[in-house]
Amino acid sequence: MFSRSSVIRLAAGIAVTLSLGVFGCSPAVVARAPLPSWNEGVARNAILEMVSATTDESNAAYVAPGDRIATFDNDGTLWVSHPLYTQAVFALDRVRALAPAHPEWKTEQPFRAILEENQPAISGFHMEDWQKVLAATHAGMSTESFEATVDGWLTIARDPRFGRRYDELVYQPMLEVLEYLRANGFQTFIVSGGGQEFLRVFSDATYGIPTSQVVGSSVVTKYEYRDGTPVLEREPEIFFIDDRKGKPVGINLFIGKRPIAAFGNSDGDREMLEWTAAGNGKRLGMLVLHDDPVREYSYGPAQGLPDTSIGAFSEELYDQAQAEGWVVISIKDDWKRVFSWE
Amino acid sequence: MFSRSSVIRLAAGIAVTLSLGVFGCSPAVVARAPLPSWNEGVARNAILEMVSATTDESNAAYVAPGDRIATFDNDGTLWVSHPLYTQAVFALDRVRALAPAHPEWKTEQPFRAILEENQPAISGFHMEDWQKVLAATHAGMSTESFEATVDGWLTIARDPRFGRRYDELVYQPMLEVLEYLRANGFQTFIVSGGGQEFLRVFSDATYGIPTSQVVGSSVVTKYEYRDGTPVLEREPEIFFIDDRKGKPVGINLFIGKRPIAAFGNSDGDREMLEWTAAGNGKRLGMLVLHDDPVREYSYGPAQGLPDTSIGAFSEELYDQAQAEGWVVISIKDDWKRVFSWE
Repeated sequence: MFSRSSVIRLAAGIAVTLSLGVFGCSPAVVARAPLPSWNEGVARNAILEMVSATTDESNAAYVAPGDRIATFDNDGTLWVSHPLYTQAVFALDRVRALAPAHPEWKTEQPFRAILEENQPAISGFHMEDWQKVLAATHAGMSTESFEATVDGWLTIARDPRFGRRYDELVYQPMLEVLEYLRANGFQTFIVSGGGQEFLRVFSDATYGIPTSQVVGSSVVTKYEYRDGTPVLEREPEIFFIDDRKGKPVGINLFIGKRPIAAFGNSDGDREMLEWTAAGNGKRLGMLVLHDDPVREYSYGPAQGLPDTSIGAFSEELYDQAQAEGWVVISIKDDWKRVFSWE
Repeated sequence: MFSRSSVIRLAAGIAVTLSLGVFGCSPAVVARAPLPSWNEGVARNAILEMVSATTDESNAAYVAPGDRIATFDNDGTLWVSHPLYTQAVFALDRVRALAPAHPEWKTEQPFRAILEENQPAISGFHMEDWQKVLAATHAGMSTESFEATVDGWLTIARDPRFGRRYDELVYQPMLEVLEYLRANGFQTFIVSGGGQEFLRVFSDATYGIPTSQVVGSSVVTKYEYRDGTPVLEREPEIFFIDDRKGKPVGINLFIGKRPIAAFGNSDGDREMLEWTAAGNGKRLGMLVLHDDPVREYSYGPAQGLPDTSIGAFSEELYDQAQAEGWVVISIKDDWKRVFSWE
């Protein structure tokens, strides 16, 4: 019933499976072609070639597993950030929820504009307005209380255009990149201008990225005792802004190694891509261009798309990408599918 | 030759091996008893019991692998920090090496005291003196240049008492704890008051702890261009002090999860242990007591040991450990062997 040769084949199969398990921690061999939601083309090939070169020990560009670091911006790179950053939507919702305890907000800006649903005023908020909103909604509570609030909000909030939870508005092709890189021994990190503790609430379940691999902006936290129990209290004071020049700083601070590959979509990602590209050996910089008004959005001055203050992809960045050999991902042309639920 | 039952047993064996490989990423079962350099006793048992409880799915204290976080202070917990912190030894050596380019140091304190090898003066350095030394030796250079300098120093510097490289002065019993925890699905982090970038130079090779799992104190870094190439420049300004109340803050900032187990040796670790212990479920707090003047050192006011300003283990901390159920590790009694090369 079981011949000697069948047992040997079985044993050989086990050896292969085990060795895959040892080196990649992924005993299940993925049979389908990688990146199935990507169209054939320059962008998809650039990812495949980078992985092929850096994981092949006979290639001059080979990189040891521990140094295979890939960093991803979040807003507009991994999930939708239009027409308003999701964390800003959360902040506005929190102002409405907290308003009964703050009668003074009825006359005090910028809160009054939010409570009166004055969209033109909200669109024109300056940095100081947003700082007041963030101080009122993101501070003055413990880290645990903040996380529970974000989690509760994600459960009930729905994006008005798509009618979906915000953590469902993630780009399927980018999820495949995350998965493909990890299957090839890369560690994937979020490096976002958004709030680190906001992102951490959903990063593991949504992207398979644990809290310790989420780099973001943060407020000062203070260690205090409340009724004898230690708490970390969020203060209304910026600790670190992980945007623009702050992204390489954050990468060095939190990761301590230079990425092999970096993915962004806006001028806030320029320095992260520069820092990544300036390393020795093969490097990959990619920028998502939002040029698909039908399936997603179309915005940013690059390529004559409509201008916006949300995640701008400037003409200057477009030119720099061309000059530096960074690869622009066209949502319209490169992505077969934008969302998993399409 | 191969009966059906023997094939079934073989298949069952594979299933077990594979599942070990899948969940622990460690298909090789370690046959020897864990923690071989520890004597039988309360301390060793506390570690074994914590791991047993948190990794057994049928136990109420079970913790999912992604939440198995263990944090370790470095100085005096993982390696020798007596009679002076190793990073301070490095800083003093750098002052001597840089002196030819700084003739003004011959008359300027605290540099003069260092160049004249005035030990009583060095022992009496105040925080401002050390800040001047750190600014002169740890800043005003790129991150890469700093790392290369530390690496070069570690190669040539020798501890005068033991005649060993400083990264050989690591405690063998603690290396075994790191290894044992990782073999059981824990992630191990350094959470040190020492310099993050100093630690990262040797953390992977010495402890198997990658740079992204090293939490420490840091200076401000700035993203700049030098001859068109981006660099991260270390500024003579403190960014974050990962000590005392800063330890839970750093844990939250860098790890984003509360540890299950924390290991320290001084009053600087008190809040890390408090924060760890205040979590739900089974928690382990441990403190290394330096009470072995023969094989290592004996210091700290706890238990009437000689007082010192280096890594003090105060009587108050000792009392708190007793009250909270934190386990004190006696080097003299609990460690069969202190160093691997003994």
